Formats: sequence, C-alpha cells, structure tokens
Amino acid sequence: MLHPDSTAPGPTTIDRATCESLDAADPLAPFRERFDLPDGIVYLDGNSLGALPRATRAHVDRVIAEEWGIGLIRSWNDAGWFAKPQSVGDRIAPLIGAAEGEVVLGDSTSGSLFQVVTAAARLRPDRNVIVAEHGSFPTDLYVIEAVQSMAGGATPLERRLVRDGGPALDELLGDDVAVVVLTHVDYRTGRMHDLAEVTARVHEAGAIMVWDLCHSVGAVPIDLGAAGADFAVGCTYKYLNGGPGSPSFMWAASRHHEAARPAVTGWHGHARPFDFEIGYEPMSGIGRFRVGTPQLLSLAALEASLDIWAEVDMSLVREKSLRLTELFMALVDRRLGAWPIEVVTPRRSTRRGSQVALRHEDGYAVMQALIERGVIGDFRAPDLMRFGFTPLYVTHADVWDAVESLHDVLESEVWREPRFAHRSAVT
Amino acid sequence: MLHPDSTAPGPTTIDRATCESLDAADPLAPFRERFDLPDGIVYLDGNSLGALPRATRAHVDRVIAEEWGIGLIRSWNDAGWFAKPQSVGDRIAPLIGAAEGEVVLGDSTSGSLFQVVTAAARLRPDRNVIVAEHGSFPTDLYVIEAVQSMAGGATPLERRLVRDGGPALDELLGDDVAVVVLTHVDYRTGRMHDLAEVTARVHEAGAIMVWDLCHSVGAVPIDLGAAGADFAVGCTYKYLNGGPGSPSFMWAASRHHEAARPAVTGWHGHARPFDFEIGYEPMSGIGRFRVGTPQLLSLAALEASLDIWAEVDMSLVREKSLRLTELFMALVDRRLGAWPIEVVTPRRSTRRGSQVALRHEDGYAVMQALIERGVIGDFRAPDLMRFGFTPLYVTHADVWDAVESLHDVLESEVWREPRFAHRSAVT
Repeated sequence: MLHPDSTAPGPTTIDRATCESLDAADPLAPFRERFDLPDGIVYLDGNSLGALPRATRAHVDRVIAEEWGIGLIRSWNDAGWFAKPQSVGDRIAPLIGAAEGEVVLGDSTSGSLFQVVTAAARLRPDRNVIVAEHGSFPTDLYVIEAVQSMAGGATPLERRLVRDGGPALDELLGDDVAVVVLTHVDYRTGRMHDLAEVTARVHEAGAIMVWDLCHSVGAVPIDLGAAGADFAVGCTYKYLNGGPGSPSFMWAASRHHEAARPAVTGWHGHARPFDFEIGYEPMSGIGRFRVGTPQLLSLAALEASLDIWAEVDMSLVREKSLRLTELFMALVDRRLGAWPIEVVTPRRSTRRGSQVALRHEDGYAVMQALIERGVIGDFRAPDLMRFGFTPLYVTHADVWDAVESLHDVLESEVWREPRFAHRSAVT
Repeated sequence: MLHPDSTAPGPTTIDRATCESLDAADPLAPFRERFDLPDGIVYLDGNSLGALPRATRAHVDRVIAEEWGIGLIRSWNDAGWFAKPQSVGDRIAPLIGAAEGEVVLGDSTSGSLFQVVTAAARLRPDRNVIVAEHGSFPTDLYVIEAVQSMAGGATPLERRLVRDGGPALDELLGDDVAVVVLTHVDYRTGRMHDLAEVTARVHEAGAIMVWDLCHSVGAVPIDLGAAGADFAVGCTYKYLNGGPGSPSFMWAASRHHEAARPAVTGWHGHARPFDFEIGYEPMSGIGRFRVGTPQLLSLAALEASLDIWAEVDMSLVREKSLRLTELFMALVDRRLGAWPIEVVTPRRSTRRGSQVALRHEDGYAVMQALIERGVIGDFRAPDLMRFGFTPLYVTHADVWDAVESLHDVLESEVWREPRFAHRSAVT
C-alpha cells in the first residue's frame, strides 16, 4: 500500500487485484453507494462537476412540491428560506476551518470574488496594488480588472501578476500592495499553496489575503482560521457535489465583518430588509455580503450533498486522495513511458491537491478518445489533460482502468482519427 | 361582464354565481390546470412568488437525473448548458418586446441591476446624476448607491429621487442626468408607468432609460422595442412562475451591445471563455452581461414555466387581469365600506398593473388573519395589504372569496387577537 506521504512512484508490482484490495480496505468505500454514477464510466472530472448524490433528486423534489408548491410564499418564514444562504453557509464552515457565522452563499464564484475583492481593497484605501497569479483561473483575473475599472479616480488600482519564471510573490509584495488573491489549488496543474505560510508572508507585507478555494474545498483539509486568512471564496459544484452551477460561498474572518464593505449592496444584505428603507445599511456580520434573492432550488441540491459531507472525515479524504493521485502518477510512469506524456502535477504530496494533469501535445484529441472509451477527464488549453480524483466515489480500480484505457488510446493511436480533432466550443 | 377599460366599480348586483359564469367563459381558464395549487387556498401572492407549474417537478428531475447524473460534465456541450442563459433569455424576449439575442439571464435582480446600471452610466461619462423614484423597490436604490460608491473619483455620481409631492421626473431631468431607473409597475401600489411615454421624455433629456420590470413581466404586455428603451431587468419568480429565486434577466437594446461595459466581467461573459486567456475581452452581444456559472437547476425550473408562457396570449392576460383587479376593487368598495380601508391602486386601468393594494392601519394583523383563513396576500410596511392577480390561475370566484374572507376578518375583528400582532422577520 502506498504511503500518503510517499513521493516514490509506488511498487512496480501493483496490478488490478492490488487496486481491488485497496478498495476493499478503503474506509471511504461505502460513500460510493451514496452517488448515482452511470454504468461503465470512470468519472475523473469531479474536480469540474461533482457526481450526483443519490439523495438529491428526492430532496429537490420535496422542496419543489412542499416548500414551493404547498408552502408558497409562506416558506420564506416557515422553511427558513431567507436564512438559507447563512444557515447553509454554516454547514460549509467545518470544511474550511471557519467559525459559525463566517460563511455565506453567493451566486457565482465570479460574483462572489467581486464582492470579496472589493471589500478587501477597501480595507487598505492607502494602497493601490492587487497581486494575483498569471496562472489563476482566468475569471479571478477578470474580476480584478472589474474592481480596477470600477475604482477609477485619483489612485487607479494596479494589477501585478506572479508568473512562472517571472517575479515571485515576495518580489511583488511592496508596501503598496492592498490585496493578494491566490488560488489554493491550481485549476490546471493541481499545485497546492501552503495556506498558512503564504498568508503569513502576505500579512507581513501588510496586505489582505483572499483565497480562491474552488479546487480545494472538499478535496483537501483547509483551515482558514488557523491560517489567519482574511477572505475566501469557493465553489460547491466540484468536490462538494452541489450540482451544476450550485451557489458559490464567501468567507470573511469575523474580525473584518463590521468594517467590510462589499461591492453590491442588495436588499438581502440590508440590516432590515423587510423594512423597505430607502437607504442601505449593511446587515451585521457575514450577511452583508448577500445580494438578492438566492436561487433556492439550486441551493436545495447543495443541501442534499452537504448531508453527505457532514459524515465525512476530511483526513480520510486527504489520505485516500493522495493514494489515488500517487497511484495514478505511478501507473502513468510505468505504463505510458513510451509516449510523450509529462506529469505536470507536483510529486510532493504537500504541494498537490486532488487532481493530476498530464501534458501531451495532442491532449485534446487524446482526451476525446479517452472519453469515448468511458474515462471522463477534461482538457485545458493548450495541452493539459486533467484528471480529478474525488475520494468519495473514485476507486483504486478506477485509477487502474483509467491508465489502461489511456494506454490503449495511445497505443492504438485511435486519437488520430479526424473526429477527435475538432474542438467544440465548450470543453 | 366588466369591460377591461372601464373605470366604474362594476355592477352592484354581482354575486358568486356571476363570478362562476365569468370563470366558465374565461379563455384562460384551462391554464389553471397547469398549476399545482394547494386545496382550500386562494393564492393572491403570485406577484411575489408564482405558483408551481405541474410540469416543473418532472422537468427538474429529468435535468438532475439525466443531464447531471448521466451526462455529467458532457452536458455543458450536449445539453446546451453553456448557452442556457442566452437560449432561455430568447424565450423571455417575446414577453417584453425584445428581439432575439437581446435578453440574457442573470443571478439575482439586484446583481443584474448592478450590471445594467453600471453599463448605462458608462454610456454617459459626461453626466453624473442617476434619477430614481423614492418609492422604488429598495434594492434598486441600494444598487444605485453601490454604483455610486464604486465610481468614486473626480465627478462622484449623485442620486436624485422623484417623490410623491416632491420633485416630479421632469423637474429632475437636467442635462447632467446620465441614467433614469424606474419601476414599470410599483411593487406596493401596482401603479404602472407609460413605458413609451416616459422613455421618450427621458431620451429627450439625453439620458439612458433603465426599466425594472419585476412587477410587470408576465402581468402586462410590454414592448421595450417599440418604446425605444435602453436597458431593463426583470424577475422570473413572480408572474413567470420560475420558482423561488429563479434567475433574473437583463435586456439591452441591440444598438448598445457593442459599447456596453457591465460592471462584473466574469469568464462566462468573455469572448472566448474556454481559451482561458488572462485578459478580459467581452463577448459580442448581450452575452457580455453574463458573470459566472449559471445555477442550472433553478434555471431548469424556469424553463418548465416558460413552456406555459409560450402558449399564452398576453392580450388575454391583460384583459383578464383588469377584470380581476376591477372586480376586486368593486367588491371592496361594496363590501368593506364600513371599515377604514383605502384602495391605493390607480382606478384607471392604463395606470394599473396586476395587483391591488389596500391601506389599513393594522394591515399586518388583518393580513395574518386573512392568511389563516386561506387567502394569501402579503403586507408591505407600514400599512399596505397587497393582493396579486395572476390571470393564469386566479379565478373570478377566488376574488369573490377573498373579499368575503376579508369582510369576515374585519367584521369578526379576529385580527385583533394578539397572535396576529407579532410581526415576523420576513413577511
């Protein structure tokens, strides 16, 4: 059995039977039964869209039939609808090391980032630089542009980017830096930052630390409180399995709540929303990050998935995640050495999230051919094939089968068929 | 039968049998069977949260089971998920006099207003005043504050309010006015503006016209194109029956698309979202108003309700709406004259949406007692009882029953019981 802290490629004697034994001994194995996965599919894209929990359909249907259909407008009180963005936020809190009352649901991650980055920048009015990474998921960069373009005036905000082979974070951390926005786990490579260590460096420079947890929440243990971070946003439709487009969340450390001034001041963030006052006054606490009416059916699906997370031990998730990713890399090393494939994900377990990226010049076509064989990963331009390992429903045997299928695709050269070459609009 | 253009209180001889005859002759009557309404309830709050269409549960369940559960990540292409905010927007277009490609779904109305008001203000960089109404739904005013506070700098934006008994719109329309934001139908009183006439006055002053259609879409015929308006936002969970928190929509006249610069530049509004470029470039057309991943399950419920709207003749809706509201006011006049109740909704049909507000000093308690008897309306501080008339599922007999119940509540003085006095947080 591979040790979770190992950086070795793993025993060369492993075979499918070994994988099956690992599955039989896996304490998380029973969770797979909590998901509806299509037959014949190895699903390695839960880092993009999580699988469907079995309980979700009935839960959403009950909310529609009873809370909406029968309760109608009364459900705003009787079913706790108004409180949902915060009551459900409290259920996400344990997954990120947040306290009760520190997490609230938003709409999309981009919208939530806009709220949070604005609030962060306003806490440092005497500084005008926002630092981010060139390799961030692009919407983070676009949202920083949006904050910049709104905050015109005397001292325009400047965006500085950390780049591979370019300036490192420390070189950019001058006393003009207001906010640093970083992605905990990189969306392409799976590279993971040390949350506490980076936060400390950013604080030393007097800046506010905003974490994007989209690719780490539900994938790795997170302790924002212990790290002393300032703000965070995250996504619930990836590892948390909340369903397509399920609401984002925002976190703000309690110490910032009263001073925080998010960008969009909608009525659901008002101190007295049902007094219908003409002037805005922020709700006390995290509720001030709210905007308008939450999309309650999407939120209902998230609630069903959080029922599962309430039972999950994140240390077991991390342990299995590392076993799966190491196993995958070890098998790639062993089986695919004949082809020009490169593992771009860090081998060091402390620097790795729960996904592995392989570089291949024709990664798009190879991935399409692989998907046709029932192994679903995805592709990120220009040349990365991504494989996500979601420990609640991915098995060691899945990992074995995925690498074997990839081997077959490469060996047969089936991916060279023209039908795999055409890149569709959405990948 | 009451004439739709009549301003008279209606025949004093009307009784429940007359109402039943009107229902029997109602061309929209068959639509009531398309909704699941709880037994024994007269639902007059569809102006706040529309009723549940019978087809919604199965449709949402299919999207969850098939598109999410089986299609998984592939549904972004195969089920057209990425295009949904625009393809579903196109289905709303006919209800508001918009052309194909002019409507896109957003998240909440507040968030969408922030996008649209920012884009509107940026079209008039040489002007710095935003005009709105004191009686607007408050979030419109809060969002204008948000736009103001973001756009700090040399010429801070100023907000000017039209008030009853205060300055009228024309008095505020100076050559410094960039944008006018008005609510087509007032959320409390049901007062309706003349969309075309007001738009023309605003344009004469050189300002941009933004309409809030929350309380008019699906309630009255709307022709933004004919009015030559600039931007609009609206809500789909009221008269459109999209479900609790179903997504808002945004409209921009085609002539503004290429110049429009909304506030939040998320990746779903990028020209090439899946090229993952580090710089933002807006998608051409209305798509640039998009932010992040749409909440697809809430959106699915909306799609089911739009299947109904595709069959609806809005002129019939308007005709019935006016009959229902006139009938209600006529019966209130006749039956409730002994109590201090005032109809605050315009009697003139051209100035009225599809709701009626009654002022009563103890409106909160009276409404609670009425709800206990199965007639559901709502209350807006300080003293307004609101009754919404949604022609697809409210009958003339419902109107009769509602007024009779209100009569009983007032005559019995049951509303004076202490249990009705306590005002809950959400009303």
